[in-house]
Amino acid sequence: MTRIRVGTLTRLLLGKPVADELLAEARSRISARPAEVPAPTLASMHVGSGGPFAFYLRQQRRSAESVGMNFREVSLPEDASTAQVRERARALERDAEVHAVLVQHPLPPGVQFQPCVDELSPEKDVDGVGSVNLGRLVEGTPTHAPAVALAVLDILRHYSVATRSERVAVIGRSPTVGLPLALLLAGHGEPGDATVTVAHSRSRNLSELLAGHRIIVSCAGVPGLLSRQVVPAGSIVIDVGLSSIADPNSPSGMRAAGDADGGGLDGWVEALTPVPGGVGPVTAAQLMRNAVDGWSMLTGQRP
Amino acid sequence: MTRIRVGTLTRLLLGKPVADELLAEARSRISARPAEVPAPTLASMHVGSGGPFAFYLRQQRRSAESVGMNFREVSLPEDASTAQVRERARALERDAEVHAVLVQHPLPPGVQFQPCVDELSPEKDVDGVGSVNLGRLVEGTPTHAPAVALAVLDILRHYSVATRSERVAVIGRSPTVGLPLALLLAGHGEPGDATVTVAHSRSRNLSELLAGHRIIVSCAGVPGLLSRQVVPAGSIVIDVGLSSIADPNSPSGMRAAGDADGGGLDGWVEALTPVPGGVGPVTAAQLMRNAVDGWSMLTGQRP
Repeated sequence: MTRIRVGTLTRLLLGKPVADELLAEARSRISARPAEVPAPTLASMHVGSGGPFAFYLRQQRRSAESVGMNFREVSLPEDASTAQVRERARALERDAEVHAVLVQHPLPPGVQFQPCVDELSPEKDVDGVGSVNLGRLVEGTPTHAPAVALAVLDILRHYSVATRSERVAVIGRSPTVGLPLALLLAGHGEPGDATVTVAHSRSRNLSELLAGHRIIVSCAGVPGLLSRQVVPAGSIVIDVGLSSIADPNSPSGMRAAGDADGGGLDGWVEALTPVPGGVGPVTAAQLMRNAVDGWSMLTGQRP
Repeated sequence: MTRIRVGTLTRLLLGKPVADELLAEARSRISARPAEVPAPTLASMHVGSGGPFAFYLRQQRRSAESVGMNFREVSLPEDASTAQVRERARALERDAEVHAVLVQHPLPPGVQFQPCVDELSPEKDVDGVGSVNLGRLVEGTPTHAPAVALAVLDILRHYSVATRSERVAVIGRSPTVGLPLALLLAGHGEPGDATVTVAHSRSRNLSELLAGHRIIVSCAGVPGLLSRQVVPAGSIVIDVGLSSIADPNSPSGMRAAGDADGGGLDGWVEALTPVPGGVGPVTAAQLMRNAVDGWSMLTGQRP
């Protein structure tokens, strides 16, 4: 396994070439389908409007269109109940024209996420966050794994960052991001087979516990968390954090920021994924790959 | 949270008082049932005879009888197929007189474990190893969690070993033992909220990576793995490993051994669970508690 060469400058691990590869593969699988098989349809459900998901939704639509996938946006009103979201998910599960369903989270307070995604079969649960897919992730055999977690693995693979027997820290323990990542990285295979440390808001003395780790995957959503004081010099940082911070120079007054934002890691670490332009675009592209996989299963094609 | 006092001698964390508490609670819940509700029935399935499970099976029967639970041993022949084991599990799932079903593993080579336990509802899957329960464990809301993993938490709680913000190493990444333990210890609550390192057969330099860990939970099944060379002095060792090793002084020629066996940890670590007599009896007792929980849910009693 090739190692990224240590230079005096930090190497930026850009998401675009990784996303482009995934999208090209999805496009070619869709265009190679038999004449009688319709193109896949991805349904993306969200509750309310505006919100932090609007950007990701546009990215999904753009990615889907670029690979020849049908994209169906399913909007529910801000005041929708858990029962209403579940009912809509159940309808999409029954709809034979839909091959992949995403439930955009976080949902508004008062709407429970898990019962909604648990209306989906493991094949249609395209982001791998239903209970059965998460359980199969523990077993090492998920039908779908969360796209953001797979995106981190895609980046490691693309840039030939070996994980086998390496120490990897995952900062964050959410059931949709941090824990799936930890399970994939500690699991069998490559990327995988890593010795994984799971750190979180209750962890003490981050700088002490990150010492000795070759790869830091941060999913905290806390800009500035990853500073030179806490990140080991020469490590590889995958920044999954995504926050919105004030920026007077931006037309909206806000901009996207990762956990490494303002941490001064440039020139300190060996390699770093930027935010935006790192994990984000790969996540959207990986979602398309998951959707094509689900469509292949549901339409009885070879994977 | 009280800390075990460091003395010159290693303290043995015996399983019996922990198991006795669990069994007393199960007994009292069963005896307090309404007159019209039958006592719970636990069905324990195994394939073939003899084998390493025979001891655990006797322990289950003894524990069940001691709390007033019905115990049904379900034996399938050595050459049973996955389909036959699944069919039997399905029948027990449908049987309204059965409240809890255990599928003893490992199964003979050629019989797949997961499809068999996945015939069970989350309520009857008493050892919490079906896909839905494992997924809910990732989400932090399992209906049942694996008894052996809960037993480790029971021991930590009983002996007032705090885990919050402590560094805990779990050695082993099996979907039924190591990973559930890591998820419980890294999850919210106490015991829990720990910074967890997952190590395994691909991990390099165990002594280096265990440094700084307050608690070591070993599920490797490798006698002698935990020696003074790898375990930090003054740490607390929970020995989940269970192997059979040759012993000319035993009538059978064999005896049970944990991962710390022969490691010379006595006088080196602060506290240690013995094998046998540590995690084992607590696991059997915790299984009874899970069975009583399942029975309470299925018969509509308050937990």
